[in-house]
Amino acid sequence: MMNREDTYNFSAGPSMLPLPVLQRASAELVNYHDCGMSVMEMSHRSSEFTDIFNSTKAKLKSALNVPDTHEILLLQGGASMQFSAIPLNLSREGDTVDYAVTGNFSKIATKEAGRYCNVNIAASSEDDNFSYIPAQEDLKLTPEAAYFYYCANNTIFGTAWPYVPETGGVPICCDMSSEILSREIDVSRYAVIFAGAQKNMAPAGLTVVIVDKRVAGHERPYTPLMLGYDLMIKKDSLYNTPPCYNIYLLGLVLDWLAEQGGVKGMEAIKHRKAAILYDYLAESSLFKPCAREGSRSDMNVTFRTGDAELDAEFVKFTKANGMFNLKGHRVAGGMRASLYNAMPFEGVEKLVNLMKEFEVQHHV
Amino acid sequence: MMNREDTYNFSAGPSMLPLPVLQRASAELVNYHDCGMSVMEMSHRSSEFTDIFNSTKAKLKSALNVPDTHEILLLQGGASMQFSAIPLNLSREGDTVDYAVTGNFSKIATKEAGRYCNVNIAASSEDDNFSYIPAQEDLKLTPEAAYFYYCANNTIFGTAWPYVPETGGVPICCDMSSEILSREIDVSRYAVIFAGAQKNMAPAGLTVVIVDKRVAGHERPYTPLMLGYDLMIKKDSLYNTPPCYNIYLLGLVLDWLAEQGGVKGMEAIKHRKAAILYDYLAESSLFKPCAREGSRSDMNVTFRTGDAELDAEFVKFTKANGMFNLKGHRVAGGMRASLYNAMPFEGVEKLVNLMKEFEVQHHV
Repeated sequence: MMNREDTYNFSAGPSMLPLPVLQRASAELVNYHDCGMSVMEMSHRSSEFTDIFNSTKAKLKSALNVPDTHEILLLQGGASMQFSAIPLNLSREGDTVDYAVTGNFSKIATKEAGRYCNVNIAASSEDDNFSYIPAQEDLKLTPEAAYFYYCANNTIFGTAWPYVPETGGVPICCDMSSEILSREIDVSRYAVIFAGAQKNMAPAGLTVVIVDKRVAGHERPYTPLMLGYDLMIKKDSLYNTPPCYNIYLLGLVLDWLAEQGGVKGMEAIKHRKAAILYDYLAESSLFKPCAREGSRSDMNVTFRTGDAELDAEFVKFTKANGMFNLKGHRVAGGMRASLYNAMPFEGVEKLVNLMKEFEVQHHV
Repeated sequence: MMNREDTYNFSAGPSMLPLPVLQRASAELVNYHDCGMSVMEMSHRSSEFTDIFNSTKAKLKSALNVPDTHEILLLQGGASMQFSAIPLNLSREGDTVDYAVTGNFSKIATKEAGRYCNVNIAASSEDDNFSYIPAQEDLKLTPEAAYFYYCANNTIFGTAWPYVPETGGVPICCDMSSEILSREIDVSRYAVIFAGAQKNMAPAGLTVVIVDKRVAGHERPYTPLMLGYDLMIKKDSLYNTPPCYNIYLLGLVLDWLAEQGGVKGMEAIKHRKAAILYDYLAESSLFKPCAREGSRSDMNVTFRTGDAELDAEFVKFTKANGMFNLKGHRVAGGMRASLYNAMPFEGVEKLVNLMKEFEVQHHV
């Protein structure tokens, strides 16, 4: 039997939500603001839900400083649906597109694009198990590419792009699922930004897509109705019923984010949180970081002892102490601590204390 | 200021959820079964969520008596996404497909299919504003059609198919969004059944698709990854992160449904509920039903006074009495009372009492 207050969940997604958000959602669940209905029961065309929808969009626009050239879409289907939507909307038959392969999800996205386009692998770090991010000077870019695609943060391998690629005018599409709202970004540099909600935003089932309106309206003739950016922009994401409750929760998370100093405040916090763990890893004689210096993610910290049995023992030890989901992804092995926005400082501090304790116990 | 207990929400969807379900969800939201996590925070690969997922699927399989030839998929995108998925998975270039057009959503589905196939309109009730369901003998069927498509219950116009079409072996696809779990069905008669959750199942953001496994695996080459039935069957809907919290709520709703006697019990209840309103409409001198006898839906009851101003006044009168969303859809006018599974008897009785009161006040 565990209290929610005493546990820390290091899952890579779905992952922790801020405790005050959960408490507020619980209190408001049956009867929202004394209107006699749950948010789950509201017609998506009702004035009550319209207020929730519009205010959530406005908060997100403000948090990410989204310019008027871009539209925020609140969709379904997950980031994986965007792997298809991007080539369907942004390329024509015979086009070449540039993909950077820096992890599992960019690899899947690349394969999907290959069904619609000529894909040029602009860079890949698969040669060293995706432990690093290629440098700008190593990107093999196609000047006439329809777009350039990359995944900003690689959840499984614990790497993050330390820079926004310079593409010489080629539109940039970016999967920001695992780092959106954790760092300031210049949205105007992107044609499409997309992110599954289940890491830093809301429960799974909502996908945020930020589209430069100037690239919409050129989808291929066989693009499914619901995947056309143009229609979704024209209908303000309300062509059909959106994932209303997830949108409501995104609004609550954005209120909480504002109290942390917004994205700017969160960026400082997340960097300090990750530093606690990386600093310890730098001096530990038992645990070693997996990702190369300069390519490391603040959101997903990967590490290992080098001994699979010892790794498993450590994961068991943490679980017994109310620290969940520290086992690394099966393709990467070792451990992974996901430190998304909702992970409190105390969670990281407690983790490092357990690592120190374990290190003493297993001193060789 | 309204109490949830004192209000009745006649919305066509999203719509009422059973009050005990909302109360249980609220109580469990922060800390599910003392495991130290909210369901919203659980990894979709965790043992905790796997239990929720598997038990929900098992409850649905049992409630609808789904045979082993068919697979239940728990997807995103809404019913509208299936308007594309069906032709993409079940037809080839040049195929003819049969569509029955009996309302707004079957009309949209027909248009979408027309982008991929030769569509034969097997029947249409648009000639009389979709107020009736065509009879079996009036269906103009194509013997070699790739499939036959219809929408079982037409939310906007308040009609429901009183029979399952006989197609002479042509596979049947059916949009059951507005009546799933309200009547017993023989799943084996269908190639594909799909339904948005936001009427009888769970909050918006979940789409249930029941596919005959024998029709999967023939999707067109440009079918987006996430729309391929075969992949979703192989991955048990867990190719990517599913809408976990909606799935959890579907499980709670199915528990509640079992307490009402399951689908069989609910079918008797829903028929008795609708009869209260239809019986009154038969004798009222002010309010008249919109749909023709023999084609009427128990889920969405449409009616009108014949005077648009009086209709508006009635809607205002009901709202002041805690009865929400009785205004008809803009393309249909008049009033619409959606009596989904979660609408209690008292809601219908109170509505009829208000109608009687209004009728006396406006006696001509």
